[in-house]
Amino acid sequence: MDPRIREHAEVIADHSTNIEAGDDVVISLPAVADELAVALHEIVGERGANPVYLNNSGRATRAYLRNSDEFETPDHQLALYEETDVFVIARGGPNVSEEADVAPETNAAYRRAYRPVLDERLEKRWCLTQYPSSGHAQLAGMSTEGYENFVWDAVTLDWEAQKEQQARMVDILDGADEVRIRSGDETDVRMSVAGNETLNDYGEHNLPGGEVFTAPVKDSVEGRVHFDMPLYRKGTEIEDARLEFEDGRVVNHSAERNEDVLTGILETDEGARYLGELGIGMNRSIDQFTYNMLFDEKMGDTVHMAVGNAYPETVGEENDRNESAEHVDMIVDMSEESVIEVDGEVVQRDGTFVFEDGFE
Amino acid sequence: MDPRIREHAEVIADHSTNIEAGDDVVISLPAVADELAVALHEIVGERGANPVYLNNSGRATRAYLRNSDEFETPDHQLALYEETDVFVIARGGPNVSEEADVAPETNAAYRRAYRPVLDERLEKRWCLTQYPSSGHAQLAGMSTEGYENFVWDAVTLDWEAQKEQQARMVDILDGADEVRIRSGDETDVRMSVAGNETLNDYGEHNLPGGEVFTAPVKDSVEGRVHFDMPLYRKGTEIEDARLEFEDGRVVNHSAERNEDVLTGILETDEGARYLGELGIGMNRSIDQFTYNMLFDEKMGDTVHMAVGNAYPETVGEENDRNESAEHVDMIVDMSEESVIEVDGEVVQRDGTFVFEDGFE
Repeated sequence: MDPRIREHAEVIADHSTNIEAGDDVVISLPAVADELAVALHEIVGERGANPVYLNNSGRATRAYLRNSDEFETPDHQLALYEETDVFVIARGGPNVSEEADVAPETNAAYRRAYRPVLDERLEKRWCLTQYPSSGHAQLAGMSTEGYENFVWDAVTLDWEAQKEQQARMVDILDGADEVRIRSGDETDVRMSVAGNETLNDYGEHNLPGGEVFTAPVKDSVEGRVHFDMPLYRKGTEIEDARLEFEDGRVVNHSAERNEDVLTGILETDEGARYLGELGIGMNRSIDQFTYNMLFDEKMGDTVHMAVGNAYPETVGEENDRNESAEHVDMIVDMSEESVIEVDGEVVQRDGTFVFEDGFE
Repeated sequence: MDPRIREHAEVIADHSTNIEAGDDVVISLPAVADELAVALHEIVGERGANPVYLNNSGRATRAYLRNSDEFETPDHQLALYEETDVFVIARGGPNVSEEADVAPETNAAYRRAYRPVLDERLEKRWCLTQYPSSGHAQLAGMSTEGYENFVWDAVTLDWEAQKEQQARMVDILDGADEVRIRSGDETDVRMSVAGNETLNDYGEHNLPGGEVFTAPVKDSVEGRVHFDMPLYRKGTEIEDARLEFEDGRVVNHSAERNEDVLTGILETDEGARYLGELGIGMNRSIDQFTYNMLFDEKMGDTVHMAVGNAYPETVGEENDRNESAEHVDMIVDMSEESVIEVDGEVVQRDGTFVFEDGFE
């Protein structure tokens, strides 16, 4: 086994989820990631925790979804997660487009039924990470070995140093009211974050981490956004999505490619028409776009907004949480002709933060 | 996909487990059996049932077991099975010896902790079947394609005709008292089956099926047995096991090869020293020994006895059920110099049943 696989597993078990004696652990990986599963099982054994190993198979999921007419909440899976302490899930199948021919409305119906299971999972110590499979390497336009280097470098960052750097941006957003994001001619959006919490993501729930994120106040979002970085949704590329917000709600949308998939996302439920997250990428070690949200949204000169579910821990007690079976992140490139303003002060210009060298 | 994989999945879903709308289904397969998983997910979707897909990975299990000091019952897995209606598990990894270097006492300790989970599973509509992997093909000394033919022929038998044939032997054993089995110079064992139930296995819990089986009355077993067909235990071959019974209990045991593994089995718990099953193979379509108990014990001129846990449905209300975390089947070749007697009447001689042509 490549020693970096064991290192990756140790970061998951130590830094991200803190696996301890007696923990009931669910490990949900694609079959090609069996070596990561082996390393995780070693650690689970060493610590006196208990594993359940799920096969996160795109082919099987597709087969189920394409042959189903309607969906109900799987009580047995819900029962499993209710008793689970730690949930580790990895992306990385042999073909990222495996679910490309599942109809968007089918996906939406499934997500609605599955939502109690997802909500239960999000209550746990959970970590979403990446296995450097051939499928994601191909998506990134990289050799498999090159992609292995990319992934294993990214997950074994000095997370304490990263945390400190990101804390500066958390300080700016905590207690702030209005955030305004402008980029090029087509993006100018304002939203309130008053009363909500800004979290510092340094590799816990997402590995790699490298962003700070919060929830917009649900009905406060006003303006237009052109998401100029492409988004892969179950292997289907949504290109140049544009959203227009009034009172927080998406009132117009379009996309240059696969607009129907975007429509399917927004029509999942009422919450899918509102933003659930505003995130600011701060990970300078992710230096290329790989068409994989887990990495792309962390890039140092991007912001992202997610339609759909807001993370409960980002929403203050006084504010309504946006609830949805969806949570789809979309990215804006902030490297040129772009500013982030917080309460009227410019805090990032053309990708450089106010606390970084080179800010003007 | 080979159409026989879909046929196999249909036999599992129709004949073995009767998957219906609303059923919560667990599918536990080795990763190489992903096509069988795909076919099962298609059917689960078509019927409006709900899948959870476990990766039954020998490498991951070995990694966990070798690194653990002690074990506890995994509450999350128990909760999963409590809510499950149908459980489908298949053997068939790339290497049947994957767990060969797990210490027998570790396996025994794990089985004790895992027992409530196993008991819960056995209460469900469950099916254990085989995927024709390269590992089991190699074990059988067959090419992978030859083994595929062997497995897929065996699982798609005419189960109704098989059921009728086996019912004749069930009639003989139902209401009987003493069963005596003699073979060669070294096997002569008597046991009572009075008050217990003889079940007709025609491909439900085991696929392929092809045996009738019951539980000996726990303390009634007397005599000696030479199990002259080899037994693979987690990839380790136990050869020529010999057991001697007094008042039902194993008082002496030996094996020509890997006796320590046999000792580990018997020392799992007190119930592992008593028989939990007497089975009589009746499947004439399984015409070769493949070192795989799921097939070998069904062969038409064999009997098998299992030390350890008795299936609850085979034990009459008046009798004590033998309980154990173990259940290990061992086979006697009955094709030569052998008889099965029931209450003093010969019902099989040299592998031919009293109701078959050629019986003398």
